[in-house]
Amino acid sequence: MDAKIRLFIDDDLAADSRVALNSSQTHYLKNVMRLDVGGLVLLFNGRDGEWRAEIKSTGKKDAVLSLQELVRAQVDEAEIWLLFAPVKKTGTNMIAEKATELGVTHLWPVITDHTNVERVKIDRLKANVIEAAEQCRRLTVPTVLEPEKLSQVLSGWNEERRLIVMDETGGGDPLAEILRHDPAASFEAILIGPEGGFARSELDAMGNLPFVTFASLGDRILRAETAAVASLAIWQALARG
Amino acid sequence: MDAKIRLFIDDDLAADSRVALNSSQTHYLKNVMRLDVGGLVLLFNGRDGEWRAEIKSTGKKDAVLSLQELVRAQVDEAEIWLLFAPVKKTGTNMIAEKATELGVTHLWPVITDHTNVERVKIDRLKANVIEAAEQCRRLTVPTVLEPEKLSQVLSGWNEERRLIVMDETGGGDPLAEILRHDPAASFEAILIGPEGGFARSELDAMGNLPFVTFASLGDRILRAETAAVASLAIWQALARG
Repeated sequence: MDAKIRLFIDDDLAADSRVALNSSQTHYLKNVMRLDVGGLVLLFNGRDGEWRAEIKSTGKKDAVLSLQELVRAQVDEAEIWLLFAPVKKTGTNMIAEKATELGVTHLWPVITDHTNVERVKIDRLKANVIEAAEQCRRLTVPTVLEPEKLSQVLSGWNEERRLIVMDETGGGDPLAEILRHDPAASFEAILIGPEGGFARSELDAMGNLPFVTFASLGDRILRAETAAVASLAIWQALARG
Repeated sequence: MDAKIRLFIDDDLAADSRVALNSSQTHYLKNVMRLDVGGLVLLFNGRDGEWRAEIKSTGKKDAVLSLQELVRAQVDEAEIWLLFAPVKKTGTNMIAEKATELGVTHLWPVITDHTNVERVKIDRLKANVIEAAEQCRRLTVPTVLEPEKLSQVLSGWNEERRLIVMDETGGGDPLAEILRHDPAASFEAILIGPEGGFARSELDAMGNLPFVTFASLGDRILRAETAAVASLAIWQALARG
């Protein structure tokens, strides 16, 4: 029987070791997926690759698994951050899910002048990226950073990291052209603005920063989540090549 | 006052002509956007560019507008078709909306062996693409084709049109590499498989067709809607350059 279910777990994973699942993972295995002792699952922790594990015992609130075999070895990932102004709930959830599928390594909600959403449910975001990582066969889970104001994000920026700002006002070259002429560095970040766009003062301030590159995705006005998915897809396609 | 609202309309658009809106557009203008006589809107029909128009009269079920000025001229668009196996409702709606934002010219629901969704609400799809086109500042609305079985789509295919099949089993080169070596032709099509992937027999049959090119979006398993958005974004980025 093939193991189909993938679970993310914090513990170290190594041959012959045993790990315990938490109560919600146990519930999922037993009551949703109808697996019991002897069932096989895949485990990953973002460090030790993907392991096949066998269910050894299940209790009401936990399950113990024994690690059988390394199925896929951990591989290095290009570091790509996505900074985004939170949009309404489904948009933010969609950004988290799709960005995870597209290999984002860090997700950072950034509050801009025109950001309408005041509260970001960070726990929900973290749960979303774990679920998406489990389903898309990633060996890692993106890091979710605490929301911060754009001005603070910029003043604390590591200047060696290029920040590609998707500018709806058309102030930049096409993203693909930028990446062709100046291929992705070892670590980069993409910033997507809010639904209403960046404030003029924000664009002016960013224009003065040496690490900022403005980029465009064309003439059409994209929703924030479309812009996030499109720019990550293009980045991955051209960084990989 | 600037016209903010964009509406798609079938009528010809020309200087000094008058057009009538249908009842749902009239309702939207009057009751949602609170516009009345003298208010300005933007109109487009996919042929004659974008026009500023003034509301001349409003009735219970219709509104008459007078065309003032051509604001943006019609431009040629690269023809890019998206064929997709319908997924559950929100996924299909999302594909329609995002594909429109990313400039798809034709949307074609295709029924494959592993397609779980039997019924596609074509009227809903058509309404979705109009709404998305109005919001993203496109000058056209994608054509929505009637759902058809994959085998029929393939047997009636125009062989001059390249069909790029996104193959989750990894049977193709990265999409960006394909487009770099063999840039987009004057008209192309992308096919996205269903959630469960294509059947082996479908892949084998397509592999024998001269117009089919298999392509990959990397190792991660993308949801159908993510694959649609990602491949269109990459296509637009590399076709434009």
